[in-house]
Amino acid sequence: VSASPTAAVLLIGDELLSGRTRDINLQNIADYLRPLGIPVKECRVVSDEQEDIVSAVNDLRKMYTYVFTTGGIGPTHDDITADAIAAAFDVGIDFHPDVLIFLAKRYKQMGTDFTDSRKRMARIPDGAVLVKNPVSGAPGFQMENVFTLAGVPQIARAMLEDIGPRLKTGKLLLRLTVQGAGLREGDIAGALVELAEDYRDLSIGSYPWFQSVSDHGVNLVASGTDQVALKAIETQLHEIVLLGGAQPKTLAEEPN
Amino acid sequence: VSASPTAAVLLIGDELLSGRTRDINLQNIADYLRPLGIPVKECRVVSDEQEDIVSAVNDLRKMYTYVFTTGGIGPTHDDITADAIAAAFDVGIDFHPDVLIFLAKRYKQMGTDFTDSRKRMARIPDGAVLVKNPVSGAPGFQMENVFTLAGVPQIARAMLEDIGPRLKTGKLLLRLTVQGAGLREGDIAGALVELAEDYRDLSIGSYPWFQSVSDHGVNLVASGTDQVALKAIETQLHEIVLLGGAQPKTLAEEPN
Repeated sequence: VSASPTAAVLLIGDELLSGRTRDINLQNIADYLRPLGIPVKECRVVSDEQEDIVSAVNDLRKMYTYVFTTGGIGPTHDDITADAIAAAFDVGIDFHPDVLIFLAKRYKQMGTDFTDSRKRMARIPDGAVLVKNPVSGAPGFQMENVFTLAGVPQIARAMLEDIGPRLKTGKLLLRLTVQGAGLREGDIAGALVELAEDYRDLSIGSYPWFQSVSDHGVNLVASGTDQVALKAIETQLHEIVLLGGAQPKTLAEEPN
Repeated sequence: VSASPTAAVLLIGDELLSGRTRDINLQNIADYLRPLGIPVKECRVVSDEQEDIVSAVNDLRKMYTYVFTTGGIGPTHDDITADAIAAAFDVGIDFHPDVLIFLAKRYKQMGTDFTDSRKRMARIPDGAVLVKNPVSGAPGFQMENVFTLAGVPQIARAMLEDIGPRLKTGKLLLRLTVQGAGLREGDIAGALVELAEDYRDLSIGSYPWFQSVSDHGVNLVASGTDQVALKAIETQLHEIVLLGGAQPKTLAEEPN
């Protein structure tokens, strides 16, 4: 684990691998962590199988400062993430008394039966710290450096708010995007190599898109922690796009 | 490697981990492979770093029948996937004469300079078999059980058509989705457990969605190779949704 914090994301769910569902949690988590200076370095997607989850958790928690899992903490039979996390850390798992009381009260207020299935959502690995779920009540949890979130994107996103203050922040990574509609990578690749050599502290990426013959182009993305260098490279990226025969446009800065 | 074919997907690109881009290639690849009876069992997302790519490729190609990589085969400095694949297989990499001729001709027809950067796209690991790119010309390639595709979704999708005939197919996995708008998982989880016990050859998943208090519900998904069992379970899934106080609806069958 390096001095500057890093993160990995582990998406759990057959529905992501089968193509039934297109994931959005990776992007949401990365967007949340970026302004905290915590880059996501790796992501894995595994099925709802305990051994696959355990193996991935145990790989990732050793390699990165933080691991965020999504999915598999609901009330149904295919929700096995809490058990898998307990197994990964080789600890027990049981009904958490505070969660039982909280959920019993919540369901009573809603006039909803607190069924055995719903009680399953109170099963928390021994030693884990709870993560608040302001959307639907049943909490996530933190086990050492591993945060276990719901799979429903709105709930996962809300849980991050409770986790943020627990994280060690890093140096803010700034990002600049210059778009060239109609541009082709091959016309600018040489100039980009030289630019990358001039700005070794920035990372420069080239991302082509292609929707159709009339709708294609390239996004040039520079990122780094040096705001002055980023301002300087913006001008140069515009020149490169112009040289490639396209009109450059700096995209609105994403919130950082 | 089991008798029934399996697949892994390796998505390569900083833009996916930074949150700049939301991936669609995993879903497209899974959708393409499903009717061939080849389930995707794992997916990883890594950055544009050679050691990360090599390590993931070497893990996955031993674990699954096929590996599909996307991204990093364009003409710019951050396109390093071909080199990484050569390194993973410990083979050389050089300009492929057929690809050089093909691309030179194509760019000549387009009246476009065949620059050194564009020539980079003709660098193919020794021993690899080419994969056709009907969209933009520069090919992907197959190295043993690893298929390397472009990152642009339209190109990656088109390349799959050339790969399909090379794949060993498995038993077709059928899928049935019964939707319950307004349904809550906790009201049906018990009945689902019993159903899962009655239909051990089918996999039954429960996927809640939550957009707002007025727009939430559960999709119940059964999948397996036994069409008769799937037809039988449809009726039971409808009953379970009704018992949960919601109106069941079988979603249109996805093309299988």
